[in-house]
Amino acid sequence: MEYEKGRTFLFRVPEDEELVSYVNKFCDKNGIKMATLSAIGSLKKAKLGYFDISKGKYEEIAVEDVHELLLATGNVSIKEGKPFSHIHAILGYKDGSVKGGHLLKATVFVAELYIEELKGDVLERVPHGNLHLWKEE
Amino acid sequence: MEYEKGRTFLFRVPEDEELVSYVNKFCDKNGIKMATLSAIGSLKKAKLGYFDISKGKYEEIAVEDVHELLLATGNVSIKEGKPFSHIHAILGYKDGSVKGGHLLKATVFVAELYIEELKGDVLERVPHGNLHLWKEE
Amino acid sequence: MEYEKGRTFLFRVPEDEELVSYVNKFCDKNGIKMATLSAIGSLKKAKLGYFDISKGKYEEIAVEDVHELLLATGNVSIKEGKPFSHIHAILGYKDGSVKGGHLLKATVFVAELYIEELKGDVLERVPHGNLHLWKEE
Repeated sequence: MEYEKGRTFLFRVPEDEELVSYVNKFCDKNGIKMATLSAIGSLKKAKLGYFDISKGKYEEIAVEDVHELLLATGNVSIKEGKPFSHIHAILGYKDGSVKGGHLLKATVFVAELYIEELKGDVLERVPHGNLHLWKEE
Repeated sequence: MEYEKGRTFLFRVPEDEELVSYVNKFCDKNGIKMATLSAIGSLKKAKLGYFDISKGKYEEIAVEDVHELLLATGNVSIKEGKPFSHIHAILGYKDGSVKGGHLLKATVFVAELYIEELKGDVLERVPHGNLHLWKEE
Repeated sequence: MEYEKGRTFLFRVPEDEELVSYVNKFCDKNGIKMATLSAIGSLKKAKLGYFDISKGKYEEIAVEDVHELLLATGNVSIKEGKPFSHIHAILGYKDGSVKGGHLLKATVFVAELYIEELKGDVLERVPHGNLHLWKEE
């Protein structure tokens, strides 16, 4: 639960990449097991999820095509032996209205991505109902 | 106003904890006087506030029961001798709609909490009308 | 793309300052070329933008006068030889509703601003259509 700071990255994700899998691959390639992350930019399209506690599963939220990525934020830890990003996204529309949810998929127009590696005991996501969670502190 | 980085924590807050008081107690227990923090997850219920400048006080905002914690973000400093967290929350609903405000209370379903301690001159919240603010820079 | 951490700042921006230009001036004065930043507080007024991909330009979004600054978040890099902040803002209203966009201008009521300097190869914003972007990774 207590960590040392590792490496710090700030860069622009290439256009048309899928953001969630890009983060996972970036971490895998760079040996990052734990991290926090944030990104701002603009997306071409996105798929958000909402975890329905009563049903115990994620429901998909329809998102119109083009929008500001007001913020994507979350963390990276280990799930089934691989770096796994848990990202929430807040999206902005032309009239200033906002949608948000668990980020399932996003096609990048522009994404300025900030990743801070954490070094220490690795948190692993293990099944917890239909979620994969870290053990409680 | 300029700080050294202290300890870094990332962990899952136990289910059913009240998030704001949990953060305050965590900081008190660990000797954290200044920090920044963020959390993502899902809440069972929450109470948000809106500071009405014209009335000089917080108004409560009704929030339906279950929602994604798209982001809680803020800082910890000292108020009346104790660590005090100032947290804003952005909440997401089943249809992707979003509510937000000053976080007064939140019952955790899942909260992945990131706390970065800051070391240096402690900022203290002192009365300023009906708010408690740091001195301006 | 990989950075060392520099200085860390947390402070209250003086009331009535314009936030975007304040950040730019703060960075310029302190020799900060790259940074990440976040702020929470309350704004007297703000002007948001939405980048319309089809038109290739920012459209302005009308924002009512007083609102919570749920979060301002972004980064600082170099544009035309000067520190330049790219900030997204998420604003909250009395009923809990939320608006968001690219932050063009904001008059501060209260803003608790956190700036983390990054040291390393400077990212420069260069023209890319009507945007100024870093080179893709």
